[in-house]
Amino acid sequence: MEFNSLNVSDIGEKGLINRIIEKNSKFSGKNFIGDDAALIENNENYLIATSDMLIQSAHFPKQMSYYQMGFKVVTVNISDIAAMGGLSIGFLFNISIPKNLKLLYFDEIIEGVLAACKYYNVPLIGGDTNESSEIILSGTALGYVNKNKQLLKHGFKKDDLIAITGELGLAPLGFELLNKNMDFTNEFADLAIYKALKPIAKNKEGIILSDYATSATDITDGLSEELYELFESDKLNSKSNRGIKIYESKFPIEKEFINLSNQVNKDIFDLFLNIGEDFEILFTINKNSAKKLRKLMNFYVIGEITDSNKIEIVDLDGNVKILPKKGYEHLSN
Amino acid sequence: MEFNSLNVSDIGEKGLINRIIEKNSKFSGKNFIGDDAALIENNENYLIATSDMLIQSAHFPKQMSYYQMGFKVVTVNISDIAAMGGLSIGFLFNISIPKNLKLLYFDEIIEGVLAACKYYNVPLIGGDTNESSEIILSGTALGYVNKNKQLLKHGFKKDDLIAITGELGLAPLGFELLNKNMDFTNEFADLAIYKALKPIAKNKEGIILSDYATSATDITDGLSEELYELFESDKLNSKSNRGIKIYESKFPIEKEFINLSNQVNKDIFDLFLNIGEDFEILFTINKNSAKKLRKLMNFYVIGEITDSNKIEIVDLDGNVKILPKKGYEHLSN
Repeated sequence: MEFNSLNVSDIGEKGLINRIIEKNSKFSGKNFIGDDAALIENNENYLIATSDMLIQSAHFPKQMSYYQMGFKVVTVNISDIAAMGGLSIGFLFNISIPKNLKLLYFDEIIEGVLAACKYYNVPLIGGDTNESSEIILSGTALGYVNKNKQLLKHGFKKDDLIAITGELGLAPLGFELLNKNMDFTNEFADLAIYKALKPIAKNKEGIILSDYATSATDITDGLSEELYELFESDKLNSKSNRGIKIYESKFPIEKEFINLSNQVNKDIFDLFLNIGEDFEILFTINKNSAKKLRKLMNFYVIGEITDSNKIEIVDLDGNVKILPKKGYEHLSN
Repeated sequence: MEFNSLNVSDIGEKGLINRIIEKNSKFSGKNFIGDDAALIENNENYLIATSDMLIQSAHFPKQMSYYQMGFKVVTVNISDIAAMGGLSIGFLFNISIPKNLKLLYFDEIIEGVLAACKYYNVPLIGGDTNESSEIILSGTALGYVNKNKQLLKHGFKKDDLIAITGELGLAPLGFELLNKNMDFTNEFADLAIYKALKPIAKNKEGIILSDYATSATDITDGLSEELYELFESDKLNSKSNRGIKIYESKFPIEKEFINLSNQVNKDIFDLFLNIGEDFEILFTINKNSAKKLRKLMNFYVIGEITDSNKIEIVDLDGNVKILPKKGYEHLSN
């Protein structure tokens, strides 16, 4: 295919981001760090900055309320600061809306943003409004982290444990339930739908983890995708044969989750591994630190760092396989 | 009209922003500073943060190249940092595009962004990509300014001069020329069109001004609108009867500008005062400081701070009138 006839969807979101990184490195001689957020030297700490945009047609299921949209644009940005081990100190909010949007709904979006800012204890410090054909919410979160405490996607050592801050797959299950539009009078279904519509960032856990974890990232694109991000970041930053092994038997999966997954015809491990949107934090931690961390917060160990130079998953029957790299990708065919 | 039936266009962009500010103050007990960018305490200086979004249908005339779109999203954000007297230290870039956008055009946008980052000497430090029905470019610029040197929209005293860093009205004239699609083989027309399609932020001037000016803002919504912003910011921050007086006779207006304005049937003062998009800086300065500043950079004095408690304009015949508050407003009927 000739270059001039290629569309952006022919190379997909990751391809486009790599393209920006490459061009940036040619232009400036410098590289992005390719992490959840940018770090800027600032005396004894780093300033952390991240910016994420949500677009109605791509990010908001029709059942999501305007209030929840506003809440979510804060959550996705705070989650990136948390995944760096940072304390969020300010939030900027840009909103773009159609001219004929009801003022009532505009108010609901703003109230969602402000409620989230209050929840995460971060001040709304600026922003602007614009006009567009669909609702677009863009946020920028700023934070700090002490030097030597920033959590990158690399930094783990062999035998470190792989852990997550909470159950995965609930938000994906919630989206399935919403898509199928089935009527569930079931507490667990309600919980899954709630996690899909109003995800919460693990901001406090991120700060605690900055004292204990050896690497971290937030799980937005699916666990398997994020594991590959850690694996590849490690390779980029060191010559290592480090690998990752996770165990299906260690995944925190409740009976209700299995029941509902069956009802919507979805594989539980696919929901757990490949969809994302849970906003839990994936991290690695030394075994001794893990014991100390246990007293401070809840988490689930699902595997460990190996020296296999690959990412393996052990299924319920004990078979070891290479973990397929899936994850949700925008802008692909 | 009942509240429930109001659309956002019934209150317009300024109304919506005031609505956010009010709700924020109710929620958090704090206020935005309502300035070009947010200031955050950071040891001996302030961290400055600003975020602005550009949307194809609202911001990009059809003659604007993809490269120029990319350049502009950097310019609008750097301009806000400059208007605070700040040095930009990092830029984050979010791009949202339709799936079927040619990869070639994506590349051009990125190259525009990177060329602008190089021009303003600010590193691209992060960002992401998304999918949307039209092109949306969102930028976040971060900067620093020493404490006591930040340029706010208030701070001026009686008898301070009112000045601008360059001629106004060129970009608005350029947009008119583009709209009319007329064929001009004229250097000045080319310049006006160039200023419309590839505006340049006064980043160096902003840093110089931080040592001399008593207040500043960038002129994006039109000079008269920005003068009202200074006037109102002063009232919000002090009990004063300060006013502003500007003189049409002092406006830097070239003969070619008058000729071309006539050809496109536009009033020169309307172009100069009411449209914006020039990205020059409007500032106030003490008379003695102005003498020193003259050695460092070019600028035009167009008026002074009075004690009239109003904004007046003196026309070419010497008549004094109240300056009408116009300025471009998105999202209004």
